[in-house]
Amino acid sequence: MDNISHPLPWKVLESEYLHKRPWLTVRKEKLEMSNGNVIPEYYVLEYPNWVNTIAITKEDQFIMVQQYRPGIEKTCFELCAGVCEKKDPSVLASAQRELLEETGYSGGTWTEFMCVAPNASAANNYSWCFVAENVEKTGDQALDEAEELTVHLFSFEEVKALLASGQIVQATMAAPLWKYIAIHNKQNLL
Amino acid sequence: MDNISHPLPWKVLESEYLHKRPWLTVRKEKLEMSNGNVIPEYYVLEYPNWVNTIAITKEDQFIMVQQYRPGIEKTCFELCAGVCEKKDPSVLASAQRELLEETGYSGGTWTEFMCVAPNASAANNYSWCFVAENVEKTGDQALDEAEELTVHLFSFEEVKALLASGQIVQATMAAPLWKYIAIHNKQNLL
Repeated sequence: MDNISHPLPWKVLESEYLHKRPWLTVRKEKLEMSNGNVIPEYYVLEYPNWVNTIAITKEDQFIMVQQYRPGIEKTCFELCAGVCEKKDPSVLASAQRELLEETGYSGGTWTEFMCVAPNASAANNYSWCFVAENVEKTGDQALDEAEELTVHLFSFEEVKALLASGQIVQATMAAPLWKYIAIHNKQNLL
Repeated sequence: MDNISHPLPWKVLESEYLHKRPWLTVRKEKLEMSNGNVIPEYYVLEYPNWVNTIAITKEDQFIMVQQYRPGIEKTCFELCAGVCEKKDPSVLASAQRELLEETGYSGGTWTEFMCVAPNASAANNYSWCFVAENVEKTGDQALDEAEELTVHLFSFEEVKALLASGQIVQATMAAPLWKYIAIHNKQNLL
């Protein structure tokens, strides 16, 4: 690798909250770059951390969900995902709670797999992905009032086909799924 | 695949702009889910589309940049990336403009590689990734006042190592890079 010189952190000269709502917390900041330039108006969104899970049943079926997403105005195939709540004792516990609530599956062997930033420039949160193997159906779906989703089981080949055709569009899910394929798929993919 | 029943789109009952600033445009909406539940307060962020590029020189070196990111308060390794501006005739032109401005490299053969949504729930934009092969250094860096970044050349093995160790953290970049590895790397990775 070549010689690496990091740009140094920027200084926060001023910071104020514009909104503090359950689903919208925004700070407006005045920042000084390490080269001395000042950015008078910079916005940072505060979010809780997110989790999603590559959940695989004992029968080697991948558990996916389908939801309508108002941001891009489309119904999407997704990994089971959610938000870390204050009551959750750990990020892993958040992921396990979400899988049970959204799909009724639980148990199995869980491994931390990846951590990405949805928007490193303007949001302060991370999205963790876990791999859960040998999960089993142990309960019923128990959705929040603002959730509406269907559960689907796919083979590994079907998940690859969905991903390769751009039908799993969320970056925080496409990243761990492609990583999973890079590790587990040694044959030709496309 | 099992029988697929899409949740239907939700209806927008009310919509108003809370902010319309160059880097923060937020709509507050009242939504009706397809099951009839009403969400009284839902926020959607409007952003321009984003682009990034897996740029590879004639010498098989991958062009990466390093920047400080105020959202997560860290200096990160990244693909060369940017925002689609209104003046750009196409998404491809945005990616080519950003590569030249940020790194001084241009030319070569460009292919559209992937499109992901940074936040399908609450943001309306997409992030496109291109692969650019055989690019050459044809100019100098020409940064905006609010940009500060260093350029680094890495081998494919070095990029894989950065990615596998979690040093390329942005979801919109990790997704296409892992896809690239899944396609181009048939040997053991980890």
